[in-house]
Amino acid sequence: MQPRPELPSHVPAVVVGAGYAGLSAALSLQDRGIDVLLLEASDRVGGRVLSEQRSSIVVDHGGQWVGPTQQRLNAWAKRFDCPTFPTWNVGEHVDIWLDGSKSRYTGIGPDQGAGMAEYLEAIDRLNDLSSRIVLDDPSSTPELEKWDSETVYSFLDRTVGSGDARRRVALAVQGVWSCEPRDLSLFHLLFYIASAGSYEQLMETEGCAQERRFVRGAQDPALAVAAALGDRLRLGTRVLGIEHRDDTAIVHTRDGSVHTDRVVLATPPPATAKLEFDPPLPMSRDRWIHRSPMGDVAKVHAVYSTPFWRADGLSGQATLYGQHPVGVVFDNSPPDAEQGVLVAFVYGDRLRNWLALEPEDRRTAVVDTLRHVFGEAAADVVDYAEKVWPTDQLTGGGYAAVPAPGTWFEHGTAGWRTPAGLIHWAGTETATEWNGYIDGAISSGERAAEEVAAALLASATVG
Amino acid sequence: MQPRPELPSHVPAVVVGAGYAGLSAALSLQDRGIDVLLLEASDRVGGRVLSEQRSSIVVDHGGQWVGPTQQRLNAWAKRFDCPTFPTWNVGEHVDIWLDGSKSRYTGIGPDQGAGMAEYLEAIDRLNDLSSRIVLDDPSSTPELEKWDSETVYSFLDRTVGSGDARRRVALAVQGVWSCEPRDLSLFHLLFYIASAGSYEQLMETEGCAQERRFVRGAQDPALAVAAALGDRLRLGTRVLGIEHRDDTAIVHTRDGSVHTDRVVLATPPPATAKLEFDPPLPMSRDRWIHRSPMGDVAKVHAVYSTPFWRADGLSGQATLYGQHPVGVVFDNSPPDAEQGVLVAFVYGDRLRNWLALEPEDRRTAVVDTLRHVFGEAAADVVDYAEKVWPTDQLTGGGYAAVPAPGTWFEHGTAGWRTPAGLIHWAGTETATEWNGYIDGAISSGERAAEEVAAALLASATVG
Repeated sequence: MQPRPELPSHVPAVVVGAGYAGLSAALSLQDRGIDVLLLEASDRVGGRVLSEQRSSIVVDHGGQWVGPTQQRLNAWAKRFDCPTFPTWNVGEHVDIWLDGSKSRYTGIGPDQGAGMAEYLEAIDRLNDLSSRIVLDDPSSTPELEKWDSETVYSFLDRTVGSGDARRRVALAVQGVWSCEPRDLSLFHLLFYIASAGSYEQLMETEGCAQERRFVRGAQDPALAVAAALGDRLRLGTRVLGIEHRDDTAIVHTRDGSVHTDRVVLATPPPATAKLEFDPPLPMSRDRWIHRSPMGDVAKVHAVYSTPFWRADGLSGQATLYGQHPVGVVFDNSPPDAEQGVLVAFVYGDRLRNWLALEPEDRRTAVVDTLRHVFGEAAADVVDYAEKVWPTDQLTGGGYAAVPAPGTWFEHGTAGWRTPAGLIHWAGTETATEWNGYIDGAISSGERAAEEVAAALLASATVG
Repeated sequence: MQPRPELPSHVPAVVVGAGYAGLSAALSLQDRGIDVLLLEASDRVGGRVLSEQRSSIVVDHGGQWVGPTQQRLNAWAKRFDCPTFPTWNVGEHVDIWLDGSKSRYTGIGPDQGAGMAEYLEAIDRLNDLSSRIVLDDPSSTPELEKWDSETVYSFLDRTVGSGDARRRVALAVQGVWSCEPRDLSLFHLLFYIASAGSYEQLMETEGCAQERRFVRGAQDPALAVAAALGDRLRLGTRVLGIEHRDDTAIVHTRDGSVHTDRVVLATPPPATAKLEFDPPLPMSRDRWIHRSPMGDVAKVHAVYSTPFWRADGLSGQATLYGQHPVGVVFDNSPPDAEQGVLVAFVYGDRLRNWLALEPEDRRTAVVDTLRHVFGEAAADVVDYAEKVWPTDQLTGGGYAAVPAPGTWFEHGTAGWRTPAGLIHWAGTETATEWNGYIDGAISSGERAAEEVAAALLASATVG
């Protein structure tokens, strides 16, 4: 192994974490002509976005979609020439109900599905309530304390009379927040809806968050930014702690230390919790980090020689209620559809139960589910891949961190993303728009870079 | 500074963290004739128990009481000859209501106090429900999922009609859990009540958790155990991480590494979250740690030349509703009552608001509160001391960690205290009886030591 080049003794700005947020902060600083160093513990960029070439197809193990209102990710796709294509979405979706019965549908759910009418009412109510979130300053939302004091479970129990409708909302919560309704507050749910624009933006494909995919995988723009950063990006450089004083900060890594004027931390909360801060972080930021556990999700890809479900008029999309390990399935076939790919999402309670199985049984459980949905042809898997995000040590889970009930009310003002002296905060969890998404990660990096640039300018003017 | 003696290359058991749990684990192993090393990052023992001699009195900045059913702490007091005395509890308590009005009362609250009747009903209901907790195996409680899915806020909103009664329960929650009703689940509340024996055990003085104090401060037994451990205790030795394989573990510290057969981790969750584990902890344990933020409490002591309130027939105890920075006051005068000491508890939302003040204003706010309760004589403070636990870097808060809603249901079985290979778990948060208390810390250490002793015996037999 070649020794890594030594760290410089001083750079104006250091960014920690080369997921989309850190890449964005570093790129944005570089675009402004500010010398920056981006430090990444792992040997790759992309964070919770990870594309793998497997024989003839690209498998996206993490974040994968881009929607039409995700302006920043679309801008990167354009700037770095990363082609996209529409998510496979033609045909009927399958809904497997509690009793195992199967409905085929198009749109948001089966017209005659159990609880559908009340489910649609619940969606309207959530959209209505979310319009009261003050998106620019969530902590000033008038109903903050009340909404952050109850879990989504309690809210549904209180306001949705039909148990079947509650189950439908629960599946949506699992799918979008990768946790259970008991784990998050009504406030965080509503904030997230407001941040995306609407409940439908979160859930749907055409015109919404799941509209398009990247031809070369969703890591493609990240790799392009890494190339643009050149030697300003240091992979394999684990940050251990940050000393920060009035006018300078020292970033300590396993490979030495670097002095800097400003730091952008773009690490997920569990990674940030591991760092040593001297002086310690302000209490609210510390509490926010410690009260924001990551979601629990695994993505499982099953590859077939053809997208056989299309001959049946099926889209490859499915929603599953009841005891199946999988909650939602999408068609993740490549643009040319030379092979067929199904991606199964396993999250929340389902993930915990599924992880208790032996690896071989995990695979059987997923493939059996796909057979139940799409027929016997689903047994003929030619390639199979699992990515269990909670066991990924540097990210600690996915898709995003989910603040526990009370966190927004108690620490939203000072703990969400207020700089701590010379330390600025990026990460999709700090985004106003598309919080929790790749797009939010990029905007969070841009916002942090703007803070840093303004601070450096101010101190240059004073100096 | 003298160089610290080198760490031995191998010991059969290493305990990390010399709070009451770690001291107990180490003592218990030593009592069994097992060679043990107890590593503590700070320069003292006691953890969240910290007694300070200030002129003629001892101030207990942390845990301070011992109740008659706390068998293990009483056993230590006896074994190590640590005298105790009854908490000052003679006279009438003061209740300051929302509108500032003052009632004097004895017992659990003012007879004619707003919401008292419904408050007493709520207590009965909580005691009833807590009797359904399966204390030996909390995760097998039949109502676990339901009770862990709602916050205490929602439960009160749903079941206690009177807002005044809800405020009374809220004050109790703040006082006992050092958080707000929105922060914890009904399940954790009920588990804690069951763990203490009853709601009254948690709240009351005579015959209950607040019955007696230690003459030389509550750190007295900890210091005695430290003396008994001699050179098996290493202060100022910060553990950074733990490598653990099938048959051996390596504990890495700032001052070198030590090989061991078994490790007991007796650090509070935020400190544990900072450690590097190789291999990583099992997902459930990792999640439990990251979803257990510490409570938010400060203890403020005001010392007077005499316990002047006694001349008025007052006990020195008070409960305060409304906008006061302080929730509860106790008489913390020394056994001889040569001086008068009031201890004010500041917690939850009150703590966050109070910490936003400048230090001088914090003191004024507390003293003004004491004047309102006890009269103008409370202005004549001869000594004043604050201990803000959330800014204590090694403990991260107090009194205990409070699992967020959903944590017990999702991770209670595998994440609460199940050993992770060679790593065993102590800490009051892992106790069955008196969870969250000094007594629970001691029993958790004894239980972990028992696990370790059994494991060492088993491998010796095999070997």
